[in-house]
Amino acid sequence: MTTSIHDLPPEEPDSPELSELYDDFKRENLTPLWTQLDDLMPMQPTPRALPHVWRWDTLLPLAERSGELVPVGRGGERRAIALANPGLPGTAYATPTLWAAIQYLGPKETAPEHRHSQNAFRFVVEGEGVWTVVNGDPVAMRRGDFLLTPGWNFHGHHNETDAPMAWIDGLDIPFVHYTDTSFFEFGAERVTDEATPDVSRSERLWAHPGLRPLSVLGQQVSSPIAAYRWEHTDAALREQLLLEDEGQPATVEQGHAAVRYTNPTTGGDVLPTIRAEFHRLRAGATTPIRREVGSSVWQVFSGTGSITLGDEQHDVTTGDLFVVPSWLPWSFTATEEFDLFRFSDAPIVERLHFDRVHIQGDNT
Amino acid sequence: MTTSIHDLPPEEPDSPELSELYDDFKRENLTPLWTQLDDLMPMQPTPRALPHVWRWDTLLPLAERSGELVPVGRGGERRAIALANPGLPGTAYATPTLWAAIQYLGPKETAPEHRHSQNAFRFVVEGEGVWTVVNGDPVAMRRGDFLLTPGWNFHGHHNETDAPMAWIDGLDIPFVHYTDTSFFEFGAERVTDEATPDVSRSERLWAHPGLRPLSVLGQQVSSPIAAYRWEHTDAALREQLLLEDEGQPATVEQGHAAVRYTNPTTGGDVLPTIRAEFHRLRAGATTPIRREVGSSVWQVFSGTGSITLGDEQHDVTTGDLFVVPSWLPWSFTATEEFDLFRFSDAPIVERLHFDRVHIQGDNT
Amino acid sequence: MTTSIHDLPPEEPDSPELSELYDDFKRENLTPLWTQLDDLMPMQPTPRALPHVWRWDTLLPLAERSGELVPVGRGGERRAIALANPGLPGTAYATPTLWAAIQYLGPKETAPEHRHSQNAFRFVVEGEGVWTVVNGDPVAMRRGDFLLTPGWNFHGHHNETDAPMAWIDGLDIPFVHYTDTSFFEFGAERVTDEATPDVSRSERLWAHPGLRPLSVLGQQVSSPIAAYRWEHTDAALREQLLLEDEGQPATVEQGHAAVRYTNPTTGGDVLPTIRAEFHRLRAGATTPIRREVGSSVWQVFSGTGSITLGDEQHDVTTGDLFVVPSWLPWSFTATEEFDLFRFSDAPIVERLHFDRVHIQGDNT
Amino acid sequence: MTTSIHDLPPEEPDSPELSELYDDFKRENLTPLWTQLDDLMPMQPTPRALPHVWRWDTLLPLAERSGELVPVGRGGERRAIALANPGLPGTAYATPTLWAAIQYLGPKETAPEHRHSQNAFRFVVEGEGVWTVVNGDPVAMRRGDFLLTPGWNFHGHHNETDAPMAWIDGLDIPFVHYTDTSFFEFGAERVTDEATPDVSRSERLWAHPGLRPLSVLGQQVSSPIAAYRWEHTDAALREQLLLEDEGQPATVEQGHAAVRYTNPTTGGDVLPTIRAEFHRLRAGATTPIRREVGSSVWQVFSGTGSITLGDEQHDVTTGDLFVVPSWLPWSFTATEEFDLFRFSDAPIVERLHFDRVHIQGDNT
Repeated sequence: MTTSIHDLPPEEPDSPELSELYDDFKRENLTPLWTQLDDLMPMQPTPRALPHVWRWDTLLPLAERSGELVPVGRGGERRAIALANPGLPGTAYATPTLWAAIQYLGPKETAPEHRHSQNAFRFVVEGEGVWTVVNGDPVAMRRGDFLLTPGWNFHGHHNETDAPMAWIDGLDIPFVHYTDTSFFEFGAERVTDEATPDVSRSERLWAHPGLRPLSVLGQQVSSPIAAYRWEHTDAALREQLLLEDEGQPATVEQGHAAVRYTNPTTGGDVLPTIRAEFHRLRAGATTPIRREVGSSVWQVFSGTGSITLGDEQHDVTTGDLFVVPSWLPWSFTATEEFDLFRFSDAPIVERLHFDRVHIQGDNT
Repeated sequence: MTTSIHDLPPEEPDSPELSELYDDFKRENLTPLWTQLDDLMPMQPTPRALPHVWRWDTLLPLAERSGELVPVGRGGERRAIALANPGLPGTAYATPTLWAAIQYLGPKETAPEHRHSQNAFRFVVEGEGVWTVVNGDPVAMRRGDFLLTPGWNFHGHHNETDAPMAWIDGLDIPFVHYTDTSFFEFGAERVTDEATPDVSRSERLWAHPGLRPLSVLGQQVSSPIAAYRWEHTDAALREQLLLEDEGQPATVEQGHAAVRYTNPTTGGDVLPTIRAEFHRLRAGATTPIRREVGSSVWQVFSGTGSITLGDEQHDVTTGDLFVVPSWLPWSFTATEEFDLFRFSDAPIVERLHFDRVHIQGDNT
Repeated sequence: MTTSIHDLPPEEPDSPELSELYDDFKRENLTPLWTQLDDLMPMQPTPRALPHVWRWDTLLPLAERSGELVPVGRGGERRAIALANPGLPGTAYATPTLWAAIQYLGPKETAPEHRHSQNAFRFVVEGEGVWTVVNGDPVAMRRGDFLLTPGWNFHGHHNETDAPMAWIDGLDIPFVHYTDTSFFEFGAERVTDEATPDVSRSERLWAHPGLRPLSVLGQQVSSPIAAYRWEHTDAALREQLLLEDEGQPATVEQGHAAVRYTNPTTGGDVLPTIRAEFHRLRAGATTPIRREVGSSVWQVFSGTGSITLGDEQHDVTTGDLFVVPSWLPWSFTATEEFDLFRFSDAPIVERLHFDRVHIQGDNT
Repeated sequence: MTTSIHDLPPEEPDSPELSELYDDFKRENLTPLWTQLDDLMPMQPTPRALPHVWRWDTLLPLAERSGELVPVGRGGERRAIALANPGLPGTAYATPTLWAAIQYLGPKETAPEHRHSQNAFRFVVEGEGVWTVVNGDPVAMRRGDFLLTPGWNFHGHHNETDAPMAWIDGLDIPFVHYTDTSFFEFGAERVTDEATPDVSRSERLWAHPGLRPLSVLGQQVSSPIAAYRWEHTDAALREQLLLEDEGQPATVEQGHAAVRYTNPTTGGDVLPTIRAEFHRLRAGATTPIRREVGSSVWQVFSGTGSITLGDEQHDVTTGDLFVVPSWLPWSFTATEEFDLFRFSDAPIVERLHFDRVHIQGDNT
């Protein structure tokens, strides 16, 4: 499109005077821009993070082995195993901004309460039996549910059954670490309410379509809905495809239904730093090639399909996770009906006005 | 609280020079402030609109007689009979800003399509069998449903049954008339989609708690949900009272549950000019005496109770409507479980920053 | 464009049964929509307010006679003479929403302090020597200055000179009266600070371009700038025309410079209900014919020109005031350099989403 | 305040099974949370960036030597030497989010045009004679001026004099690099308008207090004012101290005046990612000890004073720069009247809702 800095003639070898100048810079904690502009300000995003796929049938056995060897409790706090992007060695980060981990809780175990600046959610690809207790409100975790723990809410988890349970945690740990904004406090050793209701108090108060309690007005920074249940997500996606069958506008594009989880007090994202969505492709559907500024983590919820990340293609199935770094071209093809959960750092990118999207073939 | 202008000494009778000056003012289309300040800028709101109760068992028979005598069709457009506030003679206004009417559609009748700047909703206190078609989307009308027709959407109604149906219309007709902002266009003679689905396309796309279709992002001026169904409203209110029973914060005050109908793209009011809410009082519950800037219309949906409007008390029951003018003290007592629908001009008052509330006994 | 309701066949004379029904409606405080739809919901705005011109050389002598005959003081509060729109008989309203008056203060006179919900401003077309004291801050009034008194700020005026002074007051009195949102309190008999500084404290804190004091952050409902001085307005307009001369985009259209007075904490209008602007046309310039939803009051500040309001044309000069009702086509032609101050109810219209503009020849 | 993770008992040495598990994690690009929670999610911010002072009398001579040895032109683009935080080795970052550099342009030199996603500003501590040309608008740079180049605006600089000029650049390069949001394009080799006006077109259109051109309405992401001139900043600060002398509220705290540079279309920060302020302390004044989430860079503009950063105290004078990392306690004492320019990443922290401030002795 434009000339790349890479195309420019190489610099001459440094003269002795210049070498001395550079030494003096170094001693005085200074660095010249001109020797590193290329890396610092690339022509388009050149993320260090790599696209990568983690397989559920690898992850889950490792989580089970952790369950046998590593206790859960105060100090380590959580038995969570993070996706470590191979392009970000030495970190436990899925992308520069996002943390994604499989968390595992054995029969009758409790992960103690704490709170932190970091915003968190859980997504359940299989299993049930754990309640996450958010500011004293016990929230059942079941397959397909998306559950929120916004920053600075006390939370712990406890497994009430004789079977273990695993799920996915998503947080903005890398971003909070990077921006030096982390605060953390320990809470109760056990969860503060051990009740096991089917529905949380938060949902009873807030999860009615278009209705708000008069007792809590005003905009809230994060969504007050603690659990977005699978039955609603599934119904919303099903209806979009049926509407498409009826010739009505409803889907993102042909054969591709999608919903965004939102904060009912603003209509915006559920958390200040994290966007979450659920996508469904009809069997045979293909998405156009997209590039977006900002990074995403996806998990296949059900079905099988083929994903193209940059130049590479992967077949993926239930539970598999993969990362799409900033500006990497991606598209999906559904072998059979194909359900995917996605989370991304789009609120960071959009609130700071760095968002751009390119869809191949879209010239609008 | 403060001295009233009324307490000041009366003006002297005008001198001949002053009379001549006043005559000259009149001829030049001028009016002095000093002779009318008292009326123009009162110490607190002194609405001309009066509190008033209209009885359902009066309204419905009159609507039925209209059904026999007055055809519905192009020109008159709607068989709607408006509440005419006795304090606003010569108008058909419930309050200075709000229109409230009973609309009646006989068996197999159609009210033709049109659109206008005015924002409208319907609320159904009894009956069913009519579909309102909003921008081509047929929306079933059933007991307890709250249905939207935001400004400049084409809409018509048709009755598919052999029984008549009546419901309440609420609009901002007086405000639009007052501000000279009315545009109006005729549409189809019959509704543009005669299908009779249980659920509208709008609901299928939008009425999932906390979920938005990815195909329609951004904030919208009015709610995209065409119908807020009774089952959701009822469930939300019931849960608030159950949460109260469990000692949890959920209700407005002891024994008083309430929800606000909201726009899921903003978390704010459903229409730019109209707020709508539903209130439920437990048997025996009483609300404190409130004064609010802005006017409201209430309809009893079920149960019986006693309402105090200023100095007067009224026993009301299902279908009865009443008006609360600006700053008039009001409170309710529920004889039995008492359900009330309310709409008001609060968005006008709040967006222009004139809102004030006073609750007796609340010194915060 | 569309068929008017006026084109429809006339209604038949009412049958006895229908007459009886209408009588019953009346007795029960009800009014049918179908007999009055035409007036209530017109095809496009049909304001009762009329375009009208008031001449400064008529207004000022009447104000001077008032100064001799009518004392200013507690009770009447202000010696203000309002433009009474001939289409709104019995009121003192310039338009349905706006109040415009000439206020007159004789040598050494004081208008006592009070406060009210109503938002107010002053605009000075000639003279000086009065200080308006807003919440204890003395604000000098001089030719070309635009001065604010947002709702619920205590304010009084005092003339420090031996010459009288007259200026224009603009308020939302009609709107506040209509919406029943008026609160009013008396304050001190004399102004609370009799100092006569050239520059108010408000300006010293706030009137620096793009700079805010760190001691007052957050958005404010109304502008904290008490006085927008003529020298700044004049410079801004002059620069726009110079930029136009240089071929740069700067003016509204060829030969037509304009600025809007704004709230530096939001970038929006100075008052929640009132927009204020200043327009300058080069000698010979003409504006295209515009229609806007909402009403305006204009005052010629200097120069002469010809204004077309609907079908009528008027020559106007310094001090003349005129009203443009909603949706009335208007355009101006400058005989010589032509400066006009304008205020309107645009914030009401825009915040409630009724705004529309039509510019002749503009098909975008 | 709370127990630190550091206080907890140390982990046992890993068993062979656990070591094997950890090896398997590594092979599968996974990392356990429990071994690194302490570093990832500290009890309060523990920035790697260090407080540090760079001396103007070190910086300027190094910039001059660069001027002799390093050409400015296409490829390297700018002769800018960045403050490299000693806590962030291998980078050229002042803080994790902010770039600060001294830029130097010799007599008659031109830095060619380009544009990039990164938001930039310049601040001039001494000298003049360079024009920065922003989207074709030549903007003179003079002592005390604060100049903006919002993201994706073409810009170049040229020195019209026979003397060199140096100034400070501030950008969000580290943040853009971290979030992988960088786009970059080359522009003209020379500046696109070589005129040398005293005042930019942007200022002529926008830098009038509280006045906006009607030709450009709506909110803009970044401030349209290209230059905030020293005379306005100085006047605003001087007035705050005079108001304080008169007993009026105006300063941040006793003896401490401050202004924030703002976007006149929103009242908010000038750039989406960068806040800029100017502070003035009276001789002898001391600020309370503050901690803020987010990082800042300060430059002394004039005067001398003592700054306390954490446990260390430094005497600083004109041109000296220093960095305050997140949550580090800081306070200043003015030896003589002490003027400081500041920029920070506060918009990032606030828009994502991680902001906290602690002021010693403030218990509100």
